[in-house]
Parts: sequence; C-alpha cells; structure tokens
Amino acid sequence: MRAVDVIMKKRDGGPLSREEIRFFVDGVTSGTLPDYQASALLMAILLRGMTAEETAWLTDAMVHSGVRVDLGDIPGVKVDKHSTGGVGDKTSLILAPLAAACGVPVPMMSGRGLGHTGGTLDKLEAIPGFRVNLSLEEMKTALARVGCAMIGQTAQIAPADKKLYALRDVTGTVESIPLISASIMSKKIAEGIDALVLDVKTGRGAFMKTEADSRKLAESLVSIGNASGVKTEAVITAMDAPLGNAVGNALEVIECVEVLKGGGPSDLIEVSVELTARMLVLGQVARDRVDADRQARLAITSGAGLERFRQIIEMQGGDPRIVDDYTRLPQAEERHVVVAERAGYVNRVDAELVGRASVALGAGRDRVEDPVDPAVGIVVKAKPGDEVRAGDAVLEMHYRTRPKLEAALALAARAVTIHDTRPATGRLIVAEVH
Amino acid sequence: MRAVDVIMKKRDGGPLSREEIRFFVDGVTSGTLPDYQASALLMAILLRGMTAEETAWLTDAMVHSGVRVDLGDIPGVKVDKHSTGGVGDKTSLILAPLAAACGVPVPMMSGRGLGHTGGTLDKLEAIPGFRVNLSLEEMKTALARVGCAMIGQTAQIAPADKKLYALRDVTGTVESIPLISASIMSKKIAEGIDALVLDVKTGRGAFMKTEADSRKLAESLVSIGNASGVKTEAVITAMDAPLGNAVGNALEVIECVEVLKGGGPSDLIEVSVELTARMLVLGQVARDRVDADRQARLAITSGAGLERFRQIIEMQGGDPRIVDDYTRLPQAEERHVVVAERAGYVNRVDAELVGRASVALGAGRDRVEDPVDPAVGIVVKAKPGDEVRAGDAVLEMHYRTRPKLEAALALAARAVTIHDTRPATGRLIVAEVH
Repeated sequence: MRAVDVIMKKRDGGPLSREEIRFFVDGVTSGTLPDYQASALLMAILLRGMTAEETAWLTDAMVHSGVRVDLGDIPGVKVDKHSTGGVGDKTSLILAPLAAACGVPVPMMSGRGLGHTGGTLDKLEAIPGFRVNLSLEEMKTALARVGCAMIGQTAQIAPADKKLYALRDVTGTVESIPLISASIMSKKIAEGIDALVLDVKTGRGAFMKTEADSRKLAESLVSIGNASGVKTEAVITAMDAPLGNAVGNALEVIECVEVLKGGGPSDLIEVSVELTARMLVLGQVARDRVDADRQARLAITSGAGLERFRQIIEMQGGDPRIVDDYTRLPQAEERHVVVAERAGYVNRVDAELVGRASVALGAGRDRVEDPVDPAVGIVVKAKPGDEVRAGDAVLEMHYRTRPKLEAALALAARAVTIHDTRPATGRLIVAEVH
Repeated sequence: MRAVDVIMKKRDGGPLSREEIRFFVDGVTSGTLPDYQASALLMAILLRGMTAEETAWLTDAMVHSGVRVDLGDIPGVKVDKHSTGGVGDKTSLILAPLAAACGVPVPMMSGRGLGHTGGTLDKLEAIPGFRVNLSLEEMKTALARVGCAMIGQTAQIAPADKKLYALRDVTGTVESIPLISASIMSKKIAEGIDALVLDVKTGRGAFMKTEADSRKLAESLVSIGNASGVKTEAVITAMDAPLGNAVGNALEVIECVEVLKGGGPSDLIEVSVELTARMLVLGQVARDRVDADRQARLAITSGAGLERFRQIIEMQGGDPRIVDDYTRLPQAEERHVVVAERAGYVNRVDAELVGRASVALGAGRDRVEDPVDPAVGIVVKAKPGDEVRAGDAVLEMHYRTRPKLEAALALAARAVTIHDTRPATGRLIVAEVH
C-alpha cells in the first residue's frame, strides 16, 4: 500500500477501507509514515469528511495503537463522563465524588486546558499535593478504595492520538468531527469503562457553535461508543456564558466544594445533577431517572459527596483540608472589579471572551508546554438576565501583575453587554442523544 | 505570522495575502517551515483553490526564491516554448532549431520525463555526448553563437519549486491548476525570456483530460506570464494518440531529424510549424502569422533548420553526425511487431497506454532517480483513421529483454482499437488562448 494512493483517494472524496485506515494509524504510531504525508491526509479528511464506518474504524485503529485497560477486577459498572470543553466547566469535580458516593465506580481520565477552555487536570492540580499522573496500578487501587480515580492520559492509552493531536494542532486540522470523535472516543474506549456520559457543549464559548454541529458531533460520539461496547449517551448543554461563576483553577475548585456543600450557582448544580443522574442509571445503581436524580441530590444534602471528595483528594496525595479552609488553595492577592457602565439587564456574558481573558491572566495556556497559574481567574458577578445598576460589579479579576490584567481587561471589557430589556432565557440542557 | 493561521485561512476557503504566500514560499525554501505544515497547506490549496491574484503572487514568490536570469546581453526577443507533457511530444527538437534559424534566440530550459510522458532532456541525451547541464554562462555563450541553448533547470532557478514539487509528488497534491501554473511559470519567468509559447495538451494521454480543464490551465498560465512581463500565449493541442509515430528517446530524435529534412509524420509537422510560427511572431522576426508560417516552412525546405540543429548538437558536446547516420544513435536490436487482430479502421491509439508501455520497455521512469534506456521505444505503424487488414503491423516494439517486452505488451495490447467505420477526425489544434 502506498501512502500517496491513500491520500489521493480521500482527496478525491472516496471512503477509505479499514486496511487503509489501519495503515495510516499504524504508520503514525510507529513513525514509518512521514508527518508530511500524515498532515496531507488529515487535511483531506477535514475537507472531505469521513463516513460513520470510517470514523469507527479510525477510532478502533487508535484504540489498538495502545492497550485497552481491563478493569474486570473492579466490581460494578464503571462509568466516566467527558465534556467537549467549556468555560467554567467544572462538573467533573462535582459529579465524580457524587457518583462514587452513590456506588458507581468512576475511572476518569481527563485532559488539560487548551485555548480558551479549561481542563480538569489543571483544576485538580490547584489542590496542593494532588497527583494526576497515577500509574494504571495506582488507578485501580484508588478505584477499589474510594470508588474513583481522576488521572491524566497515560502513555499506554491510544498513543496514536497523542501523535495525531500534536500534528493536528499545528496543521489546522483540529476542527473535524470525525477526527475529534476518534480522538475522544479512542481514549475513552481504551480506559476500560463500561458506560459513558458525554456533555457536548454548544454555543459561543464552545468548540461547536451551533446546535446542529453539536448534535452531529454527539451522534458521531454516541454511535462510536455503542459500537465498541461502551454504553454511551450524550447531553447537549449550553455554553454561551460561563458555567457557574468561577473561571480559573483554584476559584473553580472552591465553587465545586460549595456545590458539594449544598450551595453554589444554580446553573452549575443543574448540569452537574443531570450528568450525575445519567451516570447512576448507566451504572445500574438507580432504577430510573427520577430515582437517580433523587440519589444525586441526596448525596449533596447528606454530605456523602463532599466526604467522598475529601477521600479522593487524600488518595491522590492532595491536601483534603482545602475543603474546609479555602486559604490553603493558591490565591492571587490583587483584585480588579469591572463594573456595569449603565443600568439594565445583562444580555450576554461571552464565555469565549471570559475564557480568553482568564488565559491572559495566566489561568490557561496557549501552548501545551506552557505552565498555568492556579490562583488567577475571573468571578462572574452578574449573569445573563440579572438586573444591574451603573457601577455594579459584573466581573471580578483575580490577578498577579498589571500587564496581564491589562491584557485580560482588553478582552473582558467586551464580554458583558447590557440591554434595556430582560433577555429571553435559553435552555441549559438543550438536547439529549442516545 | 503563524503558519497554522495561514493554513486555517486557506482551509476555510479564504484568499491568502501576498505576505502570507511569501511567508509560505520563503519558509519552504529556507527550510524554516516544516514539511508537515507545507503539505497541509498544499492539500488545502488543492481542495480550496486559489484566485488568479494568489496564483500570480505564488509564482512571483517562487521566482524570487532564486535568481531571475538577465539575458539583456543577448540581442533580440528571447522566446521559449513549454509543453504540459504528452506522448511522442517531441516538437522542442524541431522548433528550437527552426526558430533559431529564423533569427529568434531560444533559451530553452526543459525537464525530464516522468510517468507516461517523455521529457526533452532525455531525448537530447540520446544523442551521444550531448550535455544538458550547461552553466548559465555556457548557456549564454551557446545562445550568442548558435542562437539556442537546450538545458535542464539549474539550482539557481526557482529552488522553491524543486522542494515543493518533491513534496507534492508524495502527498497527493500534484493535480492543482494554481500549483501547476506556479510551478511551470516560475521556472519560465526566472530563465530570463521575453516571450513564451505554451503547448497545453488535452485528452486521454494528457494531464488535463478535458478541453475545459486544459483551457483553465492555459488561461491561468497565460495570465501569470503576461502579468510578469513575459508575453505569453497558449495553444491547446490534442493528445489522445501519440504525436508523430515514434515514442522513445533515440527513435524520437530520428523522427525530428526526418521532419527537419522535410519528411516525417504530418501531425508532428503541423504542431511543430504552428508553435514555431507563433514563436517567430512573438520574437518579432515575422510580420504576421502568414509570414511566420512561410518562414518556418522555408527553414525546413532550405535545410537551415537541420543545419542549425547540427550546430546546437555540436555546441553542447554532442555528435552532429547522428543527423546523417542514425546508426550512431543507441539502438535496441530486438523488435516485436503487434499486428491488427481484424480488418477495419484504427479508431484509437491510446497515448497513455503507449506511453506506459514505452516506460515499461525502459524508455521512461517511474521515479525521478531511475535511469532511462535511450534505445528502446515504440513506433506507431497505424494511426487513428488508417485502414488496416488483419495481420498488418500496428505497433513496433524496440526492446532489450523479454520480461520488459512482456510487461509492455500487457499495456500495448489494449492501446489500439479497430472499428468497422472510419472514425471522425478530431482537430489537432483545438484552441488558442491569449
């Protein structure tokens, strides 16, 4: 098989065979396929698309580039959750302890923030001592003892994805539903779970801007998961404004603890309970959605979720006292308040702009190798629909240095818009895909 | 400027700016742009296209990757001819001496055969001693003394093209009109000519299979040339059957000498005289096309063209006695005749199949680094429209070894088709583009 023939076939719009796709993935993994041929094929795939069958084969080839973890020793139906990425999207730190507290083993493998969206690993690492780089053995031990492990992708899991993602990032070939689907699902299938709940974000601050595109991605992901024996369902949730109020790693940890204590912003609670409830049904610890919803809320009011979060933190080397003493988390001492320039109703809090402003403060990264500052970030003080007077706080910036604040303000200044009339309230849970 | 932003802009169908195109070409030339980014951009260009303006900028950037030769010392309007490639397409060896004999300086920079089409350099090298790798200084000396130099591309001419072509060849990004146009025209503009006649082939044996595509390519080439100050016009000529009868390097040299002696096949004479006449008008040695046609034909009947060919050969180290004694050219002693299986009219002599059969005999190459055998090839004994009886010779294979003959016959067997009725005669000169 010649790589150039495979490239030309896709370039001309033809579907690739299972063997051609395996040849491509194996070549990338072993390094026998030159990067310049891989990137030409990636661009052809992005512009010509892939059928559902091709995407499934691509995912399968990527799973087989590494090991598929066997969690058969752990009793119970293992369930994970994956989000396509948003701003202030911190539900993992809430739903993992809640689901674990309800008896569902949660082996969660997460990523880091890139671009304007945050990442679960960065949030967890804001907790002093927290280790996300557990070995597969340590992960199994944590699962057996506290019913949950929250870790990063190990080298054995879908190594083809790591190489392909690095290449896609620098060749303008990220934005492709088949490539995104295969990247997400190859890792999830390889981590050894039985079921998966997907949170596909849609809107201004999401990767997919329209409901139609989000639905396409959700359908692609669900179909790949189910075909691979992982029971998969997806919820499409709104990502026009940040989820909750906190954006920035330590600030988001605090907000999650607040939710587990029974407080926190209502939109964050709604999405977290929705996703937890789905995990409980898939994990076969709840009879139905009503029962699942009740159990999830009970794990909050009883304090079982909070207690489980303490155990998870301790199990992974972190300081569990942060739950009761937020000053043990990194803090940025400087604050700057952005105020409403006029009275009216908050019409929009642009998630992408807030996310980019938070990155400018140092909370996120532009390049994979950049460090993040766990302390900095933004607290949204007025959400869409809120009535404000001129001079009311709308954003609170937690910053370290003036130059970074200036850069962040240049973005944040355009993030909040105020109108005379109250905006129509959009749905938070937009759709579900089975 | 970030390469990934340039790639994404083209990926999304946007036009690139002059600066973005220069950044790309300079990066390829200097090696600072990684091949994997260059190939992703090439695929995006192939699938998204380029405007005439972008293509002109690309060509200009490629010209400026090397030197633009100054032929100002040589008096007269310097004119070259370029063909997009065909089978048996040997007109350069006829029109260069004819135009030079009529007073037009011809600085001709040609390529080698690749795939099923032949190359002028391979044909010239069939002449014992003939050197095509003249330096630019030697080229100028030859131009001054015999009015013509026929050489290969030197390292100073459009080095970006050499790198890009190598990358396109292995990444499925050859078949793009903007990329083809820039590749051809950057070399022609850089060689220092004042005017250019293009022979854009169309049909079964051509790179462009349809007249519409050939016209698009011709228009793109003409527009780039004229914008760069090189007076350019194009003729679209048929390439369904081989041009002339001989296919193979030494065999084609003989056929060219025959034409210069006043013989040879009529189709080859027609195209050669057409192209020569256009060169004479552009070179300002003929008043108009009628005068030019008369001068071109006179250069044949007077023997001035043949005499000039002798001088060119001698100037470049070749043996001019081949003109009178064909046995001084390499010859394959083995012959095999393919005969008509039935009586009727030759309907088709498939140029691509004949070209591929000739390559299988050893006359051409599949990879740039392969050697060619100057002696082998195919003589077409019956052309489309000819009446044949069962058993009449249709193809004469000049071969070295049985295995190569067998491989060639597998292709050649399908090349000639015979019908009961005489086929409609297609035009040889299909169109012209100014």
